[in-house]
Amino acid sequence: MLFNRGMKLDAPDLKPLVFGTAVLASGGGGDPYVGELVMRQSINKFGPVRLTDPSRVSDRALVVTVGAIGAPTVFLERFPSVDAMICAVASVEKAMGRKVDAIAPVEAGGMNALLPIALAQRLNLPIIDADGMGRAFPEGQMMTYGIYGGRLSPAAVVDDDLNLVVIDCDDNKRAEELCRSTAAAMGNGAMSACYPMRGKLFKSICIRNTLSLAKEIGDVAFRANEKKRDAGEAMIEFFASRPKDPRRARTLFNGKIEDVRHDVGGAFLRGHVKLQSNDGAATCDIEFRNENLIARIDGRAVALTPDIITVLEQETGVPITTENLRYGQRVSVFAIEAPPLLRTPQALAVVGPRAFGYDCDYKPLGVAQTTAA
Amino acid sequence: MLFNRGMKLDAPDLKPLVFGTAVLASGGGGDPYVGELVMRQSINKFGPVRLTDPSRVSDRALVVTVGAIGAPTVFLERFPSVDAMICAVASVEKAMGRKVDAIAPVEAGGMNALLPIALAQRLNLPIIDADGMGRAFPEGQMMTYGIYGGRLSPAAVVDDDLNLVVIDCDDNKRAEELCRSTAAAMGNGAMSACYPMRGKLFKSICIRNTLSLAKEIGDVAFRANEKKRDAGEAMIEFFASRPKDPRRARTLFNGKIEDVRHDVGGAFLRGHVKLQSNDGAATCDIEFRNENLIARIDGRAVALTPDIITVLEQETGVPITTENLRYGQRVSVFAIEAPPLLRTPQALAVVGPRAFGYDCDYKPLGVAQTTAA
Repeated sequence: MLFNRGMKLDAPDLKPLVFGTAVLASGGGGDPYVGELVMRQSINKFGPVRLTDPSRVSDRALVVTVGAIGAPTVFLERFPSVDAMICAVASVEKAMGRKVDAIAPVEAGGMNALLPIALAQRLNLPIIDADGMGRAFPEGQMMTYGIYGGRLSPAAVVDDDLNLVVIDCDDNKRAEELCRSTAAAMGNGAMSACYPMRGKLFKSICIRNTLSLAKEIGDVAFRANEKKRDAGEAMIEFFASRPKDPRRARTLFNGKIEDVRHDVGGAFLRGHVKLQSNDGAATCDIEFRNENLIARIDGRAVALTPDIITVLEQETGVPITTENLRYGQRVSVFAIEAPPLLRTPQALAVVGPRAFGYDCDYKPLGVAQTTAA
Repeated sequence: MLFNRGMKLDAPDLKPLVFGTAVLASGGGGDPYVGELVMRQSINKFGPVRLTDPSRVSDRALVVTVGAIGAPTVFLERFPSVDAMICAVASVEKAMGRKVDAIAPVEAGGMNALLPIALAQRLNLPIIDADGMGRAFPEGQMMTYGIYGGRLSPAAVVDDDLNLVVIDCDDNKRAEELCRSTAAAMGNGAMSACYPMRGKLFKSICIRNTLSLAKEIGDVAFRANEKKRDAGEAMIEFFASRPKDPRRARTLFNGKIEDVRHDVGGAFLRGHVKLQSNDGAATCDIEFRNENLIARIDGRAVALTPDIITVLEQETGVPITTENLRYGQRVSVFAIEAPPLLRTPQALAVVGPRAFGYDCDYKPLGVAQTTAA
């Protein structure tokens, strides 16, 4: 199988790439700094890596997606294991009865966008410039891979000691629950390989070019910083101006964190954060389950899942993941419209507000914001 | 592989067999009546079944052990699925890369002693007259299979919808935890296949002839009932008189159930039962986790795990499983010394009182009782 190649990533590309995956992560996906360490080590050892454009994946290739599963807080203390990822891929190969031809990330956000690149280098396999979310989400059935007809199983969940659990289940949500309970029993931090798919299906349902998009976001923000421009504004312009995939983005709120609540349980990090505006006149609160899901200003929803909600440090523009939110941080709340594949009725049934238990429908970013004015 | 044959079981043998497995179950192993229904159906369809004596299992045979995993209460409402057992065995075969030659029960107590017989009939495989406990215990590492060098993995856990989880883990206790969390995610009721072993190892570490023992216990009790003799006394004589495996047995207490507590969680049934003696002068309390683990009279331990503690209905002598204990029942507390393989220091470290969190050492039945006098 011939895989033509896309963007090349070398050591100097890591900082912007990591920044961009953190912006797309909607606060989740695991601490991107941890992913950066894994990738830096990998590039030091194996040299630069080229992304493979999804259009170049052959129809008959076997693609497997990989990512960490658990609560992001756990990976701050327990370094993600590339060996566990290798073991997970090998288990899916065994279950499928054939070798894997290419690796793709489960999600483009945070640490989970970066680990699969390092894994692909170790396995000397192509890493596809695409993912199943264009952001990060807490559950396995919430990927376009599952929404549009892929099968999550056979999936493997592996811990640091290479204890191995292979799940096979027709229903993706049930499969996710079994993966999740396993990850919880493994201490809320494990590696998984899932959604083994033929190239033909993969290409038709993945969200394309999300790794290279992350790198471009980082470049835009870093250039703005150099020019003493506001990184948020530069990113808003960038997203609006992409010819093939224009998207709305906005800065929703500027303020100080007044309260944070973190709760690790059931292999998720659940919680909320409350902000007060710099002039003290308004409040903003964000609820998260690994990822930020809903942002309200003075009680009214202004951004709703699947749109991306990312908290940026005000001074530096650096995204802060949910597990790193702390009392007293001065931040901006930044939102980006979700990719079109996440905003269809079929997708909203799985990743929209009601799928997370909120009693409201999805409203696109601009509309939601107007309602709250 | 040639398997010579042992005791033959036909429809009329079911009642005494079920009675005996219930006596050995120490209150657990799942409702034997449910197991009886499964076996009666199986014998109606496939005819009588012959047990295979473990001595006749060839050294190179692949033996797999099967049983239900979860909380016994769940199987009162959700009938155990032979299809799920078949799927579990097939998964272990796939993981081992070869066909299974014989089936053995994980435990000789209750429903779990009977399901493997029906499974073996369906698969047209020999069912070995042996198990890993000589009773029932709540956890997978608590079998002689694990205590004396067998590996619990690869193990398969399968639910009614044939959702499938395969666990591979060197440490048996860790493997049990992963099986358990999976069973919990499957609603506390699933089927498992585990401890795939060569015949040579199996023969050296199993507890032999426990299925035929159960049938003999039933015969003894039923004969006593016919002669209007006390079934407990008849069983005590029977256990003391077995030439190859004499064991102490005693009736510890007669009284009425004053209080029962059942708590289903984490794929276990936890609880306790309190009895008052018929003359009101003494109390007995028993704690259980699926199985009865410790019996105290007026606060002093009189029987301790791994010895078997079974509550019998006073009028009929029928054993009552932990999930069927109810306020007001008039009962006898009956205890039998555990098989010698469970009373070695190596075994007591895994199945003795301390392994269940009790701050006391195992004392053999007679000794414990004297202390309490």
